[in-house]
Amino acid sequence: MMPDFTDNLKPASPTGPDILNKERSQSDVPVDQLAQHLFRDGFMERQKRILRVLEKDVLFVKVKQLNLSRPERYQLGLARAKKLRRYADQYNWNNDERSMSQYLCDDVSPFMVHDSMFITTVREQGDEQQRKYWLPKIEASEAIGCYAQTELGHGSNVRGIECQARFDPKTKQFVLHSPTLTSSKWWNGSMGRTANHAIVVAQLLVPKARDTTEYNSLGPHAFIVQIRDLKTHKELPGIAVGDINVKYGYAPMDNGYMLFDNYRIPHSAMLSNYSRVDPNTCTYSKPANPAVVYGSLTAVRAAIIMHARLIMARAVTIAVRYTCVRRQFQDRDSNDPRAPELSVLDYPTVQIRILPLLATAFALHYTGAAMQALYQTTRAQIDKGDFGKLAVLHAQSSGLKSLCTELAANSIETCRRAMGGHGFGGGSGFIQLNHDYLSKPTVEGDNWMITQQTASYLIKRMAAAVANKGKPQDEIEQACRHWLQHEQKTAPLPVFEDDMMIVKAFHKRSRYLTYQAYVEREVNKRSWNSLLIQLRKVSHAESQSILVTNFHNALHDNNSGISENLKAHLQTLFQLFAMYTMDSDARDFHKAGAVSDADLDELPARIQELMAQIRPHAVLLVDSWKIPDFLLDSALGRYDGKVYEDLFNRAHRLNPLNELTFNPYYKSDEIVMGRGDDELKKIMAKL
Amino acid sequence: MMPDFTDNLKPASPTGPDILNKERSQSDVPVDQLAQHLFRDGFMERQKRILRVLEKDVLFVKVKQLNLSRPERYQLGLARAKKLRRYADQYNWNNDERSMSQYLCDDVSPFMVHDSMFITTVREQGDEQQRKYWLPKIEASEAIGCYAQTELGHGSNVRGIECQARFDPKTKQFVLHSPTLTSSKWWNGSMGRTANHAIVVAQLLVPKARDTTEYNSLGPHAFIVQIRDLKTHKELPGIAVGDINVKYGYAPMDNGYMLFDNYRIPHSAMLSNYSRVDPNTCTYSKPANPAVVYGSLTAVRAAIIMHARLIMARAVTIAVRYTCVRRQFQDRDSNDPRAPELSVLDYPTVQIRILPLLATAFALHYTGAAMQALYQTTRAQIDKGDFGKLAVLHAQSSGLKSLCTELAANSIETCRRAMGGHGFGGGSGFIQLNHDYLSKPTVEGDNWMITQQTASYLIKRMAAAVANKGKPQDEIEQACRHWLQHEQKTAPLPVFEDDMMIVKAFHKRSRYLTYQAYVEREVNKRSWNSLLIQLRKVSHAESQSILVTNFHNALHDNNSGISENLKAHLQTLFQLFAMYTMDSDARDFHKAGAVSDADLDELPARIQELMAQIRPHAVLLVDSWKIPDFLLDSALGRYDGKVYEDLFNRAHRLNPLNELTFNPYYKSDEIVMGRGDDELKKIMAKL
Repeated sequence: MMPDFTDNLKPASPTGPDILNKERSQSDVPVDQLAQHLFRDGFMERQKRILRVLEKDVLFVKVKQLNLSRPERYQLGLARAKKLRRYADQYNWNNDERSMSQYLCDDVSPFMVHDSMFITTVREQGDEQQRKYWLPKIEASEAIGCYAQTELGHGSNVRGIECQARFDPKTKQFVLHSPTLTSSKWWNGSMGRTANHAIVVAQLLVPKARDTTEYNSLGPHAFIVQIRDLKTHKELPGIAVGDINVKYGYAPMDNGYMLFDNYRIPHSAMLSNYSRVDPNTCTYSKPANPAVVYGSLTAVRAAIIMHARLIMARAVTIAVRYTCVRRQFQDRDSNDPRAPELSVLDYPTVQIRILPLLATAFALHYTGAAMQALYQTTRAQIDKGDFGKLAVLHAQSSGLKSLCTELAANSIETCRRAMGGHGFGGGSGFIQLNHDYLSKPTVEGDNWMITQQTASYLIKRMAAAVANKGKPQDEIEQACRHWLQHEQKTAPLPVFEDDMMIVKAFHKRSRYLTYQAYVEREVNKRSWNSLLIQLRKVSHAESQSILVTNFHNALHDNNSGISENLKAHLQTLFQLFAMYTMDSDARDFHKAGAVSDADLDELPARIQELMAQIRPHAVLLVDSWKIPDFLLDSALGRYDGKVYEDLFNRAHRLNPLNELTFNPYYKSDEIVMGRGDDELKKIMAKL
Repeated sequence: MMPDFTDNLKPASPTGPDILNKERSQSDVPVDQLAQHLFRDGFMERQKRILRVLEKDVLFVKVKQLNLSRPERYQLGLARAKKLRRYADQYNWNNDERSMSQYLCDDVSPFMVHDSMFITTVREQGDEQQRKYWLPKIEASEAIGCYAQTELGHGSNVRGIECQARFDPKTKQFVLHSPTLTSSKWWNGSMGRTANHAIVVAQLLVPKARDTTEYNSLGPHAFIVQIRDLKTHKELPGIAVGDINVKYGYAPMDNGYMLFDNYRIPHSAMLSNYSRVDPNTCTYSKPANPAVVYGSLTAVRAAIIMHARLIMARAVTIAVRYTCVRRQFQDRDSNDPRAPELSVLDYPTVQIRILPLLATAFALHYTGAAMQALYQTTRAQIDKGDFGKLAVLHAQSSGLKSLCTELAANSIETCRRAMGGHGFGGGSGFIQLNHDYLSKPTVEGDNWMITQQTASYLIKRMAAAVANKGKPQDEIEQACRHWLQHEQKTAPLPVFEDDMMIVKAFHKRSRYLTYQAYVEREVNKRSWNSLLIQLRKVSHAESQSILVTNFHNALHDNNSGISENLKAHLQTLFQLFAMYTMDSDARDFHKAGAVSDADLDELPARIQELMAQIRPHAVLLVDSWKIPDFLLDSALGRYDGKVYEDLFNRAHRLNPLNELTFNPYYKSDEIVMGRGDDELKKIMAKL
């Protein structure tokens, strides 16, 4: 880029750096103390250390990557994944360090499924011999794997998958077969172009006897299968496999399809830790208690929530910094014609979109952390198959996954719109963040569907509480009994007097809605499907109650070691989260007798007051999440506030489109000036 | 693509075509009658005719375009825009026909601003001499234009723009200058690479006298400026101009930036129909009454609403068809283990996301149509400067723009999520639709900001009604008086008895909220900014009331010529839209005394009943919108229901990524098998 007159231009005053300096100097939020409080397991040290590695490697420069085509994005993703794997060898990174490098790279890795589901499945479902054979190959990335369960026609309903694994006793092989188009494996990450092996989940068909052609259908089972040649990386004969084409996000990931044409695999391909087919007698032994996976699912769900909070923190970091720097209009009630324009974040209509999300990031944090802690402390019991307290939390975790990923996914778009025009630009740092995260409400259990699991559990416990026999089975049943016997008819709670009253109000509403659903289902015998909308409401109410409770508990944890000053800020955030949530469902809180009509009327004013209290501290509160600029990749959200300089740099100096001069005259087929119709032909060839 | 074993595979039964045939045969919705009712001005004939032209031109094939890079997308967009312009010449298309070709092409055109704002501004703001000089050049596309108003630092607040046009009496020239980085023009469509001329809006500075260096600042004015060489298409010296880089959507559009370094333009560049600077005396003459634009803005807003309804209809068309074809899980209450899986649209949790949006598309239609009709019938008065009834509608149109574009933008993502996993894929047809449309809540008046205009007008009319002097100025003031004198204290309306009661309930709520806001602002003297959240609520309530009223009026229009059968279906949709909207703000309807608590309690059950009534007709109701497959570009939403065949085709046969074989082994720098580190180097050069 040649120097030009724009090189010397500065933004109008006050500049972004001046504004953010002022914002930071006016607040007493102890940023480092809060960061320590949020990240206790060496997260920050790890982030700093691995950031240093990635920042100096040009392969990880993000600013121009949205200009690449999809095929280029996959290639870049593969190159980055390989490089991270080499760094892992070089620096001897452990799993946490590898995860951190992925998180900072921010491209979903074509090796992601290899490193997670593929290896985990072999470890958990392979027998000793299989583990011994496969794990060294997997750890060396010679066998590069994927996990092929979901099909074109079936996702949520795993029992409905159509791919077959028929045991052939003559050859002692399984025959993998895709009888229909809908039986094609579909969506499976890393399968499209990267993997040379797959875990294939197929309907196990075993002959009723050694020499009949009648089969027992034994449901979905997992097989480990080589799918591509280890030298040429071409698919093996009898297999059709490829990438499913573009998606909303996940550009660097090769989500795949795969079909089998009577493809034979050895008997040893069936993962046999829990269930197996005797190759000589065709006898099938049943799987052990599937509850074994029960505990680790809770850990996975806790991780999803902890991830969701970082996504929200990232969106809010960008939104808060930019809406401070951005100024538009003088105060309409001001009489001074020379009054400065207001920061956009000074408008309540901007605050109401951003600040409750800031509070929500904290709410998610405390519940994710509580789930992780509970999982750790009860780990020994879990390993023995005793789930105790965890059983309740597990039942609740479906609802929490649903609510928390919904909140996080929506937060990105809400923040984007609150940022006005520049929110729509690539300098927002929201494009890839949004496109990738929008998968979360669907994957790992569709958010609307899985609320049934939580509601179903709650209704069962309420039914037991109504029956009132013996000792309550768990804390939820106990709470239901307490509600039935005591709370149901009590007066509304004075929620502005004491935070504990807020917690109680959320409990009371959740119990009330659970009871209503119980009556419909168990007493009025309504059909399950006719209740689905109501059940989702029950689940969300319970999840909100959990979020509020854990947030409140954290503030009253005497071992947290946080200063009174910080505690006061967190309490304001707690109240904002709780009251904002309450206001969104005010009518239910009233119907439940949890909050008085008069108090509910007052909520909007209270919320606005709380936002006004948080406003001067917003910048330091987002700073405390310590999201590095490298990860934000945002002109609008830069730590230093140089918003306009960065936007201009991206446009004027880093835009490949500006390297070409075009022919805009419509009678000509020439697109790029001086190149005749060459470029048109090239593009047409790609259509 | 070589033939392979997948060529003969069929989806499992029941197939998509069978399902949609059955859906269509079970309903009595008169599709063609309804389509005629919705599109009265030759829209369908035009659509059919122009579709035939585009469908046979390979340049307009959409299926692979999401695989292109951003620079390629611009080139494709330019090639398409040129081709459409040539077709317009060839077929002698009028404006409606040109718009239709753009609509069906579905790529925002790099000539869009040339064809709209650029030519309109010259026509309206140029004096006779300027029009005579410029219009022939513009119509011949020799002068290709853009409209440069918004800047890096200022969008909504147009008075705050920094770019200057200083009159130099010595040379009788204006000097365009960008004093800061934030004064850079920014976002202006077609400016980045396409245009060779621009309308530049700049602060007019005129010397206080002929030979002083003191200036009067006269606010933003428009100038027509050549910005690029007509032969080389390079920017002229003293101008820095380019494309601002990637955005969420609008890939084929070159939104631009532009700065001026004391760039001189002739006196004739200032568009002088309304205001001018005398080149000899430096006297400035004031603009005529700006109310001239007042009428056409209403037409623009009506067009935005009519567009929003087509966007919703498109999203809902895809969602309804796919969720009928898609089946997942048997009925949980069924005792038959061989029962077929249910269509996903049979679940109330899917219905509640899609069917109210179907109803909303109709609601938007009737209000857009009512605005257009009112604009047409009062056109003669408008041209004379008499706005009469239109003044009210204009004040309401800000709120309607806000609400309707919000509903449409949100509908896309709601439908996408309701479609589960495949909704995330490129075969959904939602990716470009969503990314482009997400600009609408921000452009043409930020959706949160402009609700102030509606609320401000309503508060003024309520204040006048309270004062109660003379005849009411307009129908809103009259309605406010009526509410103050009669309705305010009346009993809740029996909304389940008669649709008119629903309309009245929406009116009553809107008046109530207006009155509350009036009291806060005018009696309690609250600051304007502290009321912003409440004002948005007022505006939305009024907009919803308008939507409900126009929908109701349309059903009771005896000249509509629709059959009783069709009317019954539309009435169900009306009730669904109204009750769903009411349920979302139930508490306000109660506070306003508009609906009783008991009726509000019953709403969810009523809504579910209405959805059950609509469910069997959903496919024919979306068919009636006549969105062609060419425009949908959706495997999921195809008219014929061949969902899985199309998804597989896009993956297996139309995916450029599958043309390459990769090297997945991490120790190697080779990305594409057999090409060494060539590809890595190519990608790195683009970072």
